[in-house]
Amino acid sequence: MNESAARDERHKARMQRKKALIDEKIAQAQNEYGLLLVHSGNGKGKSSSAFGMVARALGHGIKVGVVQFIKGAASTGEESFFRRFPEEVSYHVMGEGFTWETQDRQRDIDKAGAAWAVARQLLNDPQIGLVVLDELNIALKHGYLELDAVLADIEARPLLQHVVVTGRGALPGMLEAADTVTEMNLVKHAFKAGVKAQKGIEF
Amino acid sequence: MNESAARDERHKARMQRKKALIDEKIAQAQNEYGLLLVHSGNGKGKSSSAFGMVARALGHGIKVGVVQFIKGAASTGEESFFRRFPEEVSYHVMGEGFTWETQDRQRDIDKAGAAWAVARQLLNDPQIGLVVLDELNIALKHGYLELDAVLADIEARPLLQHVVVTGRGALPGMLEAADTVTEMNLVKHAFKAGVKAQKGIEF
Repeated sequence: MNESAARDERHKARMQRKKALIDEKIAQAQNEYGLLLVHSGNGKGKSSSAFGMVARALGHGIKVGVVQFIKGAASTGEESFFRRFPEEVSYHVMGEGFTWETQDRQRDIDKAGAAWAVARQLLNDPQIGLVVLDELNIALKHGYLELDAVLADIEARPLLQHVVVTGRGALPGMLEAADTVTEMNLVKHAFKAGVKAQKGIEF
Repeated sequence: MNESAARDERHKARMQRKKALIDEKIAQAQNEYGLLLVHSGNGKGKSSSAFGMVARALGHGIKVGVVQFIKGAASTGEESFFRRFPEEVSYHVMGEGFTWETQDRQRDIDKAGAAWAVARQLLNDPQIGLVVLDELNIALKHGYLELDAVLADIEARPLLQHVVVTGRGALPGMLEAADTVTEMNLVKHAFKAGVKAQKGIEF
């Protein structure tokens, strides 16, 4: 798809979503809808804040889907904890063995595509109230996924579903599409003073 | 206690902690110790990031203590979720009915002191590997608690215990004492566009 056609399609998806929102608003007589939240910046809280929201959602009886686009980037602690609740959390760790820019780019693109296929299923499921797309920004930054297609799928999600996208280097189009953008910035870091990464805090 | 004596005491506590660290380092032959992390800034991720760390810690089998210094400031969703695990999470919501600067300052100071007494118990318990002091910065900023006493208790905690302090307006002394400071900054917010607070995301 060329750039202009992609933009048109994205615009159309957005307008359809907006219309659905307005219709729904009239029906509900309240302006409540699923938000797209983006956590960016170079600080440590991007993923953990998303996982705090998972806990919050579960506390409200909301079902959650998680796709980790970079295996090993997020905490093994969070994974093993939230896997305790298979009825409530649909947890997927994808992106194993990315070769990054080094070796086999087509293989990486295929793996990212497979991860996105899982994400799409979650984004199509109205039973799921919160979808965490952890480190998605990284896959987008490397060009493993096409931003317009990703945003179209996100925008076509169920009306009340929240989405949290994490990862540094969020693309401008992602920031533009977001309802809320939070930047986590590292002001001071113990590691710089030579302390090693701590289990339960850093991973 | 006057300011200079307080500073001396704080210095002494820090030096004692440093000595204990060094002794422990020699024993363990590795530089692993509990960190003091501060989450500040005007963004939304301060508390949820701390609660993501709670999930992470639980995934590693680490016991957690939580004190919320401002009732209602943090999510009721997180509270009801983590209260599911009374064996693993010691959860305390304090600070009910603060009158802030308006009415009965002595009453507020007493309530903050009671909250700190609970925090001290957690900070004295080597079975607890992570202590979350949610919105503590607010109580300090209002002068409901004395910074030096608070820091002395934090610094006297068990060697491997991590502490996360959240809240905007962290005092300079808190930032100085921290191993890691992360600032969560709001870049873009849906509420400004008139969307109301969403259950499972904002509270």
